[in-house]
Amino acid sequence: MRKKAAKDSAEPLYQRLANVLEGMIRSRALRAGDRMPSVRQFSAQQHVSVPTALQAYVTLESRGLIEARPKSGFYVRPRLSDLAPEPSPSARRPKITALGNSDPVESLLADHADPDLIPLGAALPSPHLLPGVRLTRILSGIGRSLGAHSIGYDLAPGHESLRRQLARRSLEWGCALSAEDFLVTVGATEAVSLALRAVCQPGDTVVVETPTYFGLANTLRELRLKALPIPVSATDGLDLDLLEKALRRTRVAACVTVPNFHNPMGFVMPENRKREFVQLCATRGIPILEDDTYGDLPHEGPRPRCLKAFDPGDTVILCGSFSKKLAPGYRVGYLAAGKWQSQVRSLKQTSTLIGALLPTLAVAEFLKNGGYDRYLRSIRQAYRRQVETMREAIVEYFPEGTALSRPRGGYLLWCELPGRTDAVRLLTRAREAGISIAPGPMFSPNGEFSHCIRINCGYPWSPRIEGAVEVLGRLCAGVG
Amino acid sequence: MRKKAAKDSAEPLYQRLANVLEGMIRSRALRAGDRMPSVRQFSAQQHVSVPTALQAYVTLESRGLIEARPKSGFYVRPRLSDLAPEPSPSARRPKITALGNSDPVESLLADHADPDLIPLGAALPSPHLLPGVRLTRILSGIGRSLGAHSIGYDLAPGHESLRRQLARRSLEWGCALSAEDFLVTVGATEAVSLALRAVCQPGDTVVVETPTYFGLANTLRELRLKALPIPVSATDGLDLDLLEKALRRTRVAACVTVPNFHNPMGFVMPENRKREFVQLCATRGIPILEDDTYGDLPHEGPRPRCLKAFDPGDTVILCGSFSKKLAPGYRVGYLAAGKWQSQVRSLKQTSTLIGALLPTLAVAEFLKNGGYDRYLRSIRQAYRRQVETMREAIVEYFPEGTALSRPRGGYLLWCELPGRTDAVRLLTRAREAGISIAPGPMFSPNGEFSHCIRINCGYPWSPRIEGAVEVLGRLCAGVG
Repeated sequence: MRKKAAKDSAEPLYQRLANVLEGMIRSRALRAGDRMPSVRQFSAQQHVSVPTALQAYVTLESRGLIEARPKSGFYVRPRLSDLAPEPSPSARRPKITALGNSDPVESLLADHADPDLIPLGAALPSPHLLPGVRLTRILSGIGRSLGAHSIGYDLAPGHESLRRQLARRSLEWGCALSAEDFLVTVGATEAVSLALRAVCQPGDTVVVETPTYFGLANTLRELRLKALPIPVSATDGLDLDLLEKALRRTRVAACVTVPNFHNPMGFVMPENRKREFVQLCATRGIPILEDDTYGDLPHEGPRPRCLKAFDPGDTVILCGSFSKKLAPGYRVGYLAAGKWQSQVRSLKQTSTLIGALLPTLAVAEFLKNGGYDRYLRSIRQAYRRQVETMREAIVEYFPEGTALSRPRGGYLLWCELPGRTDAVRLLTRAREAGISIAPGPMFSPNGEFSHCIRINCGYPWSPRIEGAVEVLGRLCAGVG
Repeated sequence: MRKKAAKDSAEPLYQRLANVLEGMIRSRALRAGDRMPSVRQFSAQQHVSVPTALQAYVTLESRGLIEARPKSGFYVRPRLSDLAPEPSPSARRPKITALGNSDPVESLLADHADPDLIPLGAALPSPHLLPGVRLTRILSGIGRSLGAHSIGYDLAPGHESLRRQLARRSLEWGCALSAEDFLVTVGATEAVSLALRAVCQPGDTVVVETPTYFGLANTLRELRLKALPIPVSATDGLDLDLLEKALRRTRVAACVTVPNFHNPMGFVMPENRKREFVQLCATRGIPILEDDTYGDLPHEGPRPRCLKAFDPGDTVILCGSFSKKLAPGYRVGYLAAGKWQSQVRSLKQTSTLIGALLPTLAVAEFLKNGGYDRYLRSIRQAYRRQVETMREAIVEYFPEGTALSRPRGGYLLWCELPGRTDAVRLLTRAREAGISIAPGPMFSPNGEFSHCIRINCGYPWSPRIEGAVEVLGRLCAGVG
């Protein structure tokens, strides 16, 4: 308790006030165009000094939420992006597709590592937003205390300290998993790969969302699986009607889905639809691979529940990772494969045997000592601000008619560019201008979304990023 | 240079003298039963004090190489193990086999981690022989200097600092690989798995050695491959005549082999046979997967060359790892897949994307700063002594007629027990007695070697280990 009090008082009063006001603006208790109480009024209402009240307002102003109008006071800023349309779902009829040989993961990650390129491409936060120094200090401390044993093997299915923390957290996901239900993996990449190998045979067909994250198409191709893309809507996720129709026609071995803060769309599938989706697949005996990589990153409110929470028959395979939200290079992910747990365990043993011990222990300790929760609280606000500012900037700089996703968590934004804008040409031009982006066709198993791009909002807003958005906006016009 | 001189003079004079004498005994310049020069003679010959000369002799005595006979002086000890026969190769006719569902890797590693069990089972050195403290200190230092970037992604195909060190070392292996030829993997496990996936289709047949390390059978089974076991001899390795005959009858997709310090036999395939083997497969277009995990651990003399050194056609795929000789839990391995390099790189990307950054950088630094070479020099001697002492002890305590491999490197010993000794029953009894061993059938894809065991000699000799060998010897009699 003492620790918590110390933490609370460490946050300056003006910032706490600004947070309260920000919450009111977000929840529309204060609406775009509303006049804020005067600084003097606000100071009296809140029993704080005038300078403190003013600082709270200035903070809100710097967050882009209110603006000072000369001789008139502070007003809630209109958000242009509120008027932006939402991207439309794929209009194609679901059709099994063999996967092409495009391989953009490496080049996007290489672009991301290039300090000369502005990192709007790969889905990665700024290293300066991640608790790298703290986490590596924890890792070093564990290494020191283990001494000669610091280089020893971890044991299958991955260190119990991490699996216990995952079990504790699974309550928050709406599940009640035990440490025995988990397998520690080399990121979500290994988790998804093992799960697909456990439930599919080469040649099988797998339902994927379209758009979906591009690593998945590579994985399916390497496992010699075919994809059956089902459109997602920007608000509700997977189109269950189309899914049901497709399942009537097609034998499907598994569905892969990102129901919470979808990559690239950012939606959360509503709970009633989650329930319906699980039911739909369970009655047909089709396992669902749920990739929950971004689930811990809501912009506000509680963490959304997992599909696995609605899974009485143990047919949802839950995959997750700390790569996208904590420590990419630690390569710590996990898998709760329900009734396929022993199969994925055997596959893991012959694929990589076990992951690196020290990173696993460091993540476990960070989860256990409360560091992760404190970090999440701060990062969620940062991502929310970054995504909102990016939305505003895109509406300002991109051609009229650009549609934008409304991410409810994470740090990814999906833009549908107007007319015949060619995203792949835009990628080339953008790279020449020193900007990395992810073009839409990367997210489609069958080459759709040629006029869409995904924008990484994982970096704090800066003039450099604003400049990049401006340049992109101009380039859009040239590649129509 | 100054550093080296400091290191040399740090080793006491008597120890250096003892090392010279030990070399003479090992090389048979001094033979079992020979009388050593008297202490006084030796002191005069070497221009050292009598106490120093005496201490050198006492050191040799404690190493079990000479013995004092009352009133007569020191004599070179006869080594009983020199008389032990060598294990016989498998007598079965090579025949394709489907692989059973046994899965001993996890249980052996769990046994190894159990401090109540004497660790003669899993192939692992004592953590106290490995430079864990130094290596983890290097890792922590790198983490500190990288700061916020310490948790960042490594980039495909694995950090260049490690790949450059591997390229430099490949000269020692008889190859001349470049940094671009390597892919960093999660241990040799991932290397072998990726290589098999690149060159085989499910249902294909793969030549394996018999006996061979047991992880391989699991890997083949999970990849839905069949095994064609070819016997190895305890001195020369794979029986190339049998291999050639088998290749005439059978379509084979790949050969997997451990030509240097074979697990479990310890032999090095002679160079002329290495050349012949590569030729045999190259002319038939069959890729060879060479697992060089133990190649850095010769008991004396230079490091043996790799099969890859005799590979003009780039059809040898070289796999290796630092797990068994440096840092098991760091999970750093590598793969040079020749003409399959782009395939294994794609497979890696969808299997685990990339390994953990900090362990990779730490191993690279240890290789670069000379720490690895210094460590190898000391560890090779330790393993040689441990293996020789184990051989002596087994000859002393095991039933007459026990045959023993003569490992030329590494820390594994293969024992063929006499008569109808049942190694699997021995395993059960041994575990009850607090001893972990690896029974022979684990090393056979078709359940042979029921009267063989593999003994891990990775731990410094101790009364506890000697006691375990004595107990095992007694138990052998009871499970005949």
